[in-house]
Amino acid sequence: MSGATYMTKDAILAIDLGGTKVLCGVIGADGTVLGRAKQSTRSHPDASVLLEQIAACARQAVSAANIDYSRIRGVGVGVPGPVNTETGIVKVAPNLGWHDVPAKMILEKLLEVPVSIDNDVRVAMIAEHARGVARGAERAVGIFIGTGVGGGVIIDGRIYRGRDMQAGEVGHMIVKAGGPEGNCGHHGCLEAMASRTAITRDLREALGRGKKSLLTKLAGDDLSKLGSGELARAIAQDDKLAKKIVGKSAKYAGYGISCVVNLLNPDIVVLGGGVVEAVGAWYVKRATESARQNVISEDVRDVPIVQSSLGDDAGILGAAQLVLLAEQAPGTPANE
Amino acid sequence: MSGATYMTKDAILAIDLGGTKVLCGVIGADGTVLGRAKQSTRSHPDASVLLEQIAACARQAVSAANIDYSRIRGVGVGVPGPVNTETGIVKVAPNLGWHDVPAKMILEKLLEVPVSIDNDVRVAMIAEHARGVARGAERAVGIFIGTGVGGGVIIDGRIYRGRDMQAGEVGHMIVKAGGPEGNCGHHGCLEAMASRTAITRDLREALGRGKKSLLTKLAGDDLSKLGSGELARAIAQDDKLAKKIVGKSAKYAGYGISCVVNLLNPDIVVLGGGVVEAVGAWYVKRATESARQNVISEDVRDVPIVQSSLGDDAGILGAAQLVLLAEQAPGTPANE
Repeated sequence: MSGATYMTKDAILAIDLGGTKVLCGVIGADGTVLGRAKQSTRSHPDASVLLEQIAACARQAVSAANIDYSRIRGVGVGVPGPVNTETGIVKVAPNLGWHDVPAKMILEKLLEVPVSIDNDVRVAMIAEHARGVARGAERAVGIFIGTGVGGGVIIDGRIYRGRDMQAGEVGHMIVKAGGPEGNCGHHGCLEAMASRTAITRDLREALGRGKKSLLTKLAGDDLSKLGSGELARAIAQDDKLAKKIVGKSAKYAGYGISCVVNLLNPDIVVLGGGVVEAVGAWYVKRATESARQNVISEDVRDVPIVQSSLGDDAGILGAAQLVLLAEQAPGTPANE
Repeated sequence: MSGATYMTKDAILAIDLGGTKVLCGVIGADGTVLGRAKQSTRSHPDASVLLEQIAACARQAVSAANIDYSRIRGVGVGVPGPVNTETGIVKVAPNLGWHDVPAKMILEKLLEVPVSIDNDVRVAMIAEHARGVARGAERAVGIFIGTGVGGGVIIDGRIYRGRDMQAGEVGHMIVKAGGPEGNCGHHGCLEAMASRTAITRDLREALGRGKKSLLTKLAGDDLSKLGSGELARAIAQDDKLAKKIVGKSAKYAGYGISCVVNLLNPDIVVLGGGVVEAVGAWYVKRATESARQNVISEDVRDVPIVQSSLGDDAGILGAAQLVLLAEQAPGTPANE
């Protein structure tokens, strides 16, 4: 008998699939990241091309961790779009050009271990609940503000998924009926008011009206490449227009927070995503002020509103957690 | 030994306390209403005066049921304002002039049986979940549109209360930032946009601008006594202004529904309260159309949006349910 036959399956392969890159990590039994690999990705009309690239990247991470592949007990994946966690089908991932892709099934064939898959924002919230600022909370809500706005809800100490596994769409709550149109086609939803896309739109309009900003120096004239880092730098340099427009995003984020807090009276609210992580305390402070002004019950108003803590690793740490949750509830979708 | 000593405690006393009246009912073991009593109430600087009147009304209901008082096993009470269900203290009930009233303690002294107490809207939702349109739902949200807008959330088949027992404040979600001010002092919350108070404000403004409506015939010129019944009659008579303004309320109710549906992906949404019950299907249809347009996930869009079914009895049926829930979880607040 070879030793390999009896090797403990003590490591998890975690895949954080973004719109332009994939980050893979191997997480050991003690929760540390044993190895990583990263690749740029490009959308392809055939989803299996990208999935093969992802599987190759995942195997690279195992090599980087310097462990035998047979130690991998499961794979967790976060994807940028809504997922049916029961079937493992990605309904739509606009940045990847995916529609109804059976990603779980394909990856299980390629990687030869069980795969658990969920939406990237829900995965980030699972990570914050398992290992970050919302650790151990009975009830928590995460609001993640980046290119779009997504969220995740923890109830009874577990991720809450809802009837169709689609709960947590905090970005599409209407906070300004009749407001500007978001990418989703709705007017005045939180995403249309607070996302980086909304910030860029507002900046472009203001610059078009002749307003001046350091951002044209930092990001160039057309703003299409404007990142959260440039916003943070402009604010740090006291740029009036950047402060005004990012401040507006924070104010609306606060309205969104107040909505979920009035509805769910949670133990903690986690604010994350590219905009929040780049701008940091400046943003969280303004969002918190706006939220507290709009929470109706005095008892509830002191709810902690805290910046996410796991940064770039949230995606792989949460994806690894998906595997543990699926193991705890065999035969049912992870953590439901 | 007297027979009374061994009499079964098989009946529940249910109290539905409104802003201007109290309705008491005795609910038998089979869930039927065995007897009722009703009294008009008036706010009084000393809360115990009203509580004594309530207790007297409750004993009248027992007489009307023609049963021995010793058969009462518990009392359930719904009150028009936020309650700490653990301590039984009513934090505030504006229509009664109450602030921090230990209603549970006082009623237990007066009625000599255990008392369970909760907010009236949450009680109505508990009733719809136990015996009405949301019967047996795993996840449900109720939105009740009357003088104000309140709500209740069912998760995991139980009423959801949150960290401070204050969850379900759907009326204070911001749906039109910068909109008109509600009684709560916030701008553009659902209550400020959709409640009967908002409808009356909009009508008054329109009439002030010279618009004509049957409502001035039905309710008189000053509109301060305008009830949901008059709104329903004006709509039934095809009154253009009433349809426009109540239709606006329904549209905003739909925005509110879409927010909770996007966030919680429930099995069912219950629409109730004075406005909805009076105007009925006309209102529910418009609210539903507005909601479905703003639900982001296709899978979720078909969520049933259903008018509450229990009408005037929801208050006492839900209050009776509070007692059963408290008995199921002794030592903990009802149904948590």
